[in-house]
Amino acid sequence: VTRVVLLTDFGTADGYAAAMAGVVAAGAPGAVLEHATHDIAPGDLLGAAIALYRFASRYPPGTVHLVVVDPGVGTDRRPLAATLDHRHYVAPDNGVLSLVLRDAVARAVVTIENVGLGDRAAPTFHGRDIFAPAAAHLARGEPLAALGPPLHDPVELDLPEPRRTGDAIRGEVLHVDRFGTLITNIPASWIQPTGAPERAVEVTVAGRAVGPLRRTYGDVASHESLALIGSLGLLEVSVRDGHAAALLDAGRGAAVHVTGAAS
Amino acid sequence: VTRVVLLTDFGTADGYAAAMAGVVAAGAPGAVLEHATHDIAPGDLLGAAIALYRFASRYPPGTVHLVVVDPGVGTDRRPLAATLDHRHYVAPDNGVLSLVLRDAVARAVVTIENVGLGDRAAPTFHGRDIFAPAAAHLARGEPLAALGPPLHDPVELDLPEPRRTGDAIRGEVLHVDRFGTLITNIPASWIQPTGAPERAVEVTVAGRAVGPLRRTYGDVASHESLALIGSLGLLEVSVRDGHAAALLDAGRGAAVHVTGAAS
Amino acid sequence: VTRVVLLTDFGTADGYAAAMAGVVAAGAPGAVLEHATHDIAPGDLLGAAIALYRFASRYPPGTVHLVVVDPGVGTDRRPLAATLDHRHYVAPDNGVLSLVLRDAVARAVVTIENVGLGDRAAPTFHGRDIFAPAAAHLARGEPLAALGPPLHDPVELDLPEPRRTGDAIRGEVLHVDRFGTLITNIPASWIQPTGAPERAVEVTVAGRAVGPLRRTYGDVASHESLALIGSLGLLEVSVRDGHAAALLDAGRGAAVHVTGAAS
Repeated sequence: VTRVVLLTDFGTADGYAAAMAGVVAAGAPGAVLEHATHDIAPGDLLGAAIALYRFASRYPPGTVHLVVVDPGVGTDRRPLAATLDHRHYVAPDNGVLSLVLRDAVARAVVTIENVGLGDRAAPTFHGRDIFAPAAAHLARGEPLAALGPPLHDPVELDLPEPRRTGDAIRGEVLHVDRFGTLITNIPASWIQPTGAPERAVEVTVAGRAVGPLRRTYGDVASHESLALIGSLGLLEVSVRDGHAAALLDAGRGAAVHVTGAAS
Repeated sequence: VTRVVLLTDFGTADGYAAAMAGVVAAGAPGAVLEHATHDIAPGDLLGAAIALYRFASRYPPGTVHLVVVDPGVGTDRRPLAATLDHRHYVAPDNGVLSLVLRDAVARAVVTIENVGLGDRAAPTFHGRDIFAPAAAHLARGEPLAALGPPLHDPVELDLPEPRRTGDAIRGEVLHVDRFGTLITNIPASWIQPTGAPERAVEVTVAGRAVGPLRRTYGDVASHESLALIGSLGLLEVSVRDGHAAALLDAGRGAAVHVTGAAS
Repeated sequence: VTRVVLLTDFGTADGYAAAMAGVVAAGAPGAVLEHATHDIAPGDLLGAAIALYRFASRYPPGTVHLVVVDPGVGTDRRPLAATLDHRHYVAPDNGVLSLVLRDAVARAVVTIENVGLGDRAAPTFHGRDIFAPAAAHLARGEPLAALGPPLHDPVELDLPEPRRTGDAIRGEVLHVDRFGTLITNIPASWIQPTGAPERAVEVTVAGRAVGPLRRTYGDVASHESLALIGSLGLLEVSVRDGHAAALLDAGRGAAVHVTGAAS
């Protein structure tokens, strides 16, 4: 069984997401449809890239990820399809695949030219008329190369990179999740290499100290803030039983400082 | 494989939608459940009718659409089931099927009398006790006619119709989508017949000029408004990278004027 | 076919829910995934317990309910799995299963110790690393007992109980649903035993009289309040075509008085 996993910023109430799902169901009758999310904030490519990165590789090999956050629909941005480490991806070429592309060991990327409605596609809804047919094509087991010619320079998001100076790191908040947790761009390996002894790491977000590196929520009292390594392997800042973004008045782009990191 | 596609205004957090899904799963074990949306605004029959119209025919023949937006539950509105062009529909008889009924070439409509809990149905939740069992019945491949007697006069929504005077059209906004796009009741064919040369069409919404008819977002600068033919084949008004409804202060019912249309 | 039904408070936009779904898909390739809801308010154990209670037993025997509302993740709360009347449940041991446990005739409950990542689980995301693998284990048909040792004292929510004095009942509002309906903790059987003649029951919520017990919305005029027995078998207070919680200024915990009840 091949699963086609949809991620969009369409919401569900207008029926756009279901129209895409219907096209996949009609084009790949044996495929299993899975709705990962349609609640990405409109046009939020980074939010979509992070959500996709969180779940894409958890699905089994052969899965088709159909990713449509497409603020550039109706411009000349290219439609692409890719096979990355045995999973397939169909998306606009706007950087939304940046994080999964960055991690891929084996990758093949093409421009979609030969499947879907082409010039007859609704110029405002390539999700239905180009991307869904391409996902159905892959879900039927047909080859990536049949979709179109290789694409060698997929667009990448301009992601902020953390910087290290001695035992200090400057990074920033990439994303705020539903619980208010601040997910930063600082990887665990920069702070605490495996096997290293515990160090007196101190973390500051938007100018406020949130203490040393903790393991989990249970290490602090309710309503207290803490820094920890989150489930993506990145430094996160939370408030136990509270909403860190609101309580620390910090959102995407807020400065994060770490001192006492491994160096 | 038969798909049962759910559309409701129940949200998901209370468990009503899942209770319906569970009844379908128990009654038609081989059916595949698909949740199109549960985010229709409470009681919004027109919004539901438009969403359904957008996706219903994209699903393959044999699909069962289970549509429960039912502000009249517990009154004497009838429960109905229909087969329209090889797809099945189960819904309250309140107009929510108006747009798919209007387009159907082949149609059969019945009142649901013989399936579900009948008089023992919870008077506030026919979705679970009448509509879901009827959808399971159809998903098992059992006949429409077994559900109950023919219904010859299904309720239709009182949809606003556009009017034409010479090369001018007066219509209105039917729906605002998640992106703020204003979807009007003016069909493409009234403006620009296939094969006709481009004409100097001018569009006004709620008293504001939004320019000539464009093909797609890429035809205007970011944050500029435009009129185009949307993916439903209706005139739409958008703001590129912006929210037209907010920026033009226009919502459902706002007046739309077109001049220079085909006549 | 075995269905795995997910209920969480994760939302969908961050990709947490899809990460769980992907782990189930990878671990139980034949399982059918069903998303009941991810819209439980963050940490709302009672809301989750009520939603689960509404749909759990509607799914066929053999269904696996994967329930992750887990404000105590990263503390010492136990992970549990249970088989209740031929349906399986995987959840944190925090009371979220209280209502389904209370109703179960046959029950077996274990602590999850032998499946999932154990000590290597992300301390903030047991949904992905412990609960989803346990759900996949059960969906593959493997035995409950293999997950870990029996758990004899699952945590129960401290639910408010109604009290009766003669023909008067004092209860409270347990939950407000999407439509604004107030769902109380007073069971139908306390008010109107089956077969009893109609009695002059009068209901008051938060000090406001909402009239006698009605059967359904059609029994009152639009915008009028009414009390009725809801689809869970509990006393509910609604406003026809309106939002009772807003109009009566009453929410969870509001006092409900009934006079003239069966005694």
